[in-house]
Amino acid sequence: MQILDGLLISQHIKDALKLQVAQLVTEGKKVPHLAAVLVGNNGASETYVNAKVKACAETGFKSTLIRLEDTISENRLLNVIGELNTDIDVDGILVQLPLPKHISDEKVINAIDISKDVDGFHPISIGKMVQGISTFVPATPHGIMLLLEHYKIDTRGMHAVVVGRSNIVGRPISILLSSNTNPGNCTVTICHSQTKNLRELCLQADLIVAALGKPEFLTGDMVKENAIIIDVGITRVPDASKKSGFALKGDVKFSEVAPKCSYITPVPGGVGPMTIAALMKNTFKACIDKN
Amino acid sequence: MQILDGLLISQHIKDALKLQVAQLVTEGKKVPHLAAVLVGNNGASETYVNAKVKACAETGFKSTLIRLEDTISENRLLNVIGELNTDIDVDGILVQLPLPKHISDEKVINAIDISKDVDGFHPISIGKMVQGISTFVPATPHGIMLLLEHYKIDTRGMHAVVVGRSNIVGRPISILLSSNTNPGNCTVTICHSQTKNLRELCLQADLIVAALGKPEFLTGDMVKENAIIIDVGITRVPDASKKSGFALKGDVKFSEVAPKCSYITPVPGGVGPMTIAALMKNTFKACIDKN
Repeated sequence: MQILDGLLISQHIKDALKLQVAQLVTEGKKVPHLAAVLVGNNGASETYVNAKVKACAETGFKSTLIRLEDTISENRLLNVIGELNTDIDVDGILVQLPLPKHISDEKVINAIDISKDVDGFHPISIGKMVQGISTFVPATPHGIMLLLEHYKIDTRGMHAVVVGRSNIVGRPISILLSSNTNPGNCTVTICHSQTKNLRELCLQADLIVAALGKPEFLTGDMVKENAIIIDVGITRVPDASKKSGFALKGDVKFSEVAPKCSYITPVPGGVGPMTIAALMKNTFKACIDKN
Repeated sequence: MQILDGLLISQHIKDALKLQVAQLVTEGKKVPHLAAVLVGNNGASETYVNAKVKACAETGFKSTLIRLEDTISENRLLNVIGELNTDIDVDGILVQLPLPKHISDEKVINAIDISKDVDGFHPISIGKMVQGISTFVPATPHGIMLLLEHYKIDTRGMHAVVVGRSNIVGRPISILLSSNTNPGNCTVTICHSQTKNLRELCLQADLIVAALGKPEFLTGDMVKENAIIIDVGITRVPDASKKSGFALKGDVKFSEVAPKCSYITPVPGGVGPMTIAALMKNTFKACIDKN
């Protein structure tokens, strides 16, 4: 069993970006600039946004963090997006989800200028990804593909089972893995809450992407020998023994699954840092495409 | 075994649209207007476009058929699209594919105003479909969903195997069938040229969508008892006994598969006419949304 070390590979990616940014500076060009919008003060969202801002600092990107009260109106938020769209210094815009209930995620995402849609959640970005046209691929599935690529895992002809059909992970990774690309070219089965025989399907899989958000649902008896396991789940589970009061749990019961598989992503240190690395790559692309 | 009668159901849909169009006329409103662009004179393309124009006549839609030489430049074709985009009388634009090799399908499709994209091939239409937002769904997968709906087939929890990953059929139907809708909510496996154990996967399926464009590849030994079979293939196979010189073959070996399954679409008279009915529904929607 080999660990797919998201922490290490994301560091490689950030190091490479840092060199490219230094080159831009040498050439007198502008550096990539990510604007992150955080509404309210959800603990997990704070953590994610802070990690993104920190990654910008590490790679030499400029970043702007815009914090807004969770009582902000939808219109006011749309105005903020509008201002970022027209700010020529801003290359990428990300709005940390989820938004408060009185605000439509869809309206806000669709308001982002598609040339700055570094989260890849705009319908036109999704549509291009489906059609195999160059675009911003959502950060988590993009990060997973980068990880498979980095470890030179030849996925062609593999049977991949994706558990979860969310717009931000399950759906796009099922599309990417089944595309005529490398990595890719998998036969892909997408499973969800209505799937009847999840265990039997997972047992057929050469590669499983667990993206249900249900701590440790993927147990040892659901995985065949030498499967590749990608764990997207990251749930805060109360744990009195921790200083923070919680432990982070993936969707995979690591102690049972790890001994059986060929490759596995840990939680934390797997898909999470790769997501951030992919976001950095998208922001760099936004900057380069524009200039 | 019951035939899923696309000819009959498409007629019901067209009859319902005809009544709705008559109502528009009574109210003094404009009727839906479909503009079809045909480049060159490929035999199959001629047949498809003529069937669409005929369906417009049957339902009381206005139609315009624009025939262009296959030597037309890409720029000239883009200008034609531009004119149709700005023509306020035109509600829907379809460009019959394939286009000659010197013209980019992508550029031409992307040039269509999204409010007139009744074929649903524009990336923004595809992206919205993926995200479950109201949009134009490509005609063939839309027609399949209408057929399942009409026969009140409860697909929830079924394992659907889609064979083929094209942008116009396999990919979108795999997304629709796995969406949280009814019909829908299937566990979906998408197969393609790199799939290794197609027979074993098909044998697990409660529902098979055969969309590979390979005549009669789905044989009786690949189908379990009581499966539902949707045959999207329609290939012209040379046949000296026919006046036309060819016979139309589906992707399914009907004589072997039909006795085993619960429902099956025939070729012709299955998915083909449903595709046209779905295009008519999309064009009606384009007209209503605009006015």
